Amino acid sequence: MPSAILLIAHGSRRPEANRDLVEIAHAIAVRRPDDLIEIAYLELAEPDIPTGARRCVDRGATDVRMLPYFLSAGAHVREDLTAFRDRFAEEYPGVTFHCCPPLGLHPGIIDVLLQRLKETQ
Amino acid sequence: MPSAILLIAHGSRRPEANRDLVEIAHAIAVRRPDDLIEIAYLELAEPDIPTGARRCVDRGATDVRMLPYFLSAGAHVREDLTAFRDRFAEEYPGVTFHCCPPLGLHPGIIDVLLQRLKETQ
Repeated sequence: MPSAILLIAHGSRRPEANRDLVEIAHAIAVRRPDDLIEIAYLELAEPDIPTGARRCVDRGATDVRMLPYFLSAGAHVREDLTAFRDRFAEEYPGVTFHCCPPLGLHPGIIDVLLQRLKETQ
Repeated sequence: MPSAILLIAHGSRRPEANRDLVEIAHAIAVRRPDDLIEIAYLELAEPDIPTGARRCVDRGATDVRMLPYFLSAGAHVREDLTAFRDRFAEEYPGVTFHCCPPLGLHPGIIDVLLQRLKETQ
């Protein structure tokens, strides 16, 4: 029963910002070798979220975790992701879809900020 | 010779997104009790970056590190922050200003993502 991670970023008009998500996906793949990993963008870039979800299902996932690569997800983003999750659950009845929280105020973010503080330019 | 951290977010029309920065500043203050901490927003919210910088200087900082609370800082944001740094260095000759990198692709971000993966909703 393969599990999939659908890593979701906002999407940008700048290709280099969208490439970050590909690098993040590679880093996650190294750490989670048994999971299928797909990426998707909420807007402004491809693949979009329905395409990402379909790729997870086509690869045989029976469980898909939608993981936002957002610092904070406002009401609008949260509603969008929840609506996608409900829609996918209907569209792919044999597959379970979950939404994970955004990076947000996790203590690990403070650790990274304090490390960045030492890297003055 | 007090040092200051000027924590900078993009700024949002949503007050709850802007409040995140205040919470991050509190968490940093706990971990860096000897530093002065001020916050600023690049746009859409107050205080703006010149106001934040002036507050650091008014509180006696002789060294100000501009710390972006951004996942990635595109060319536009990087140029803006560098331009501010150069302008402040001229405006406040006795004070040193540095720019720190954004959160970006730091391995700690992968750690936080993998923890969020367990928190399905």
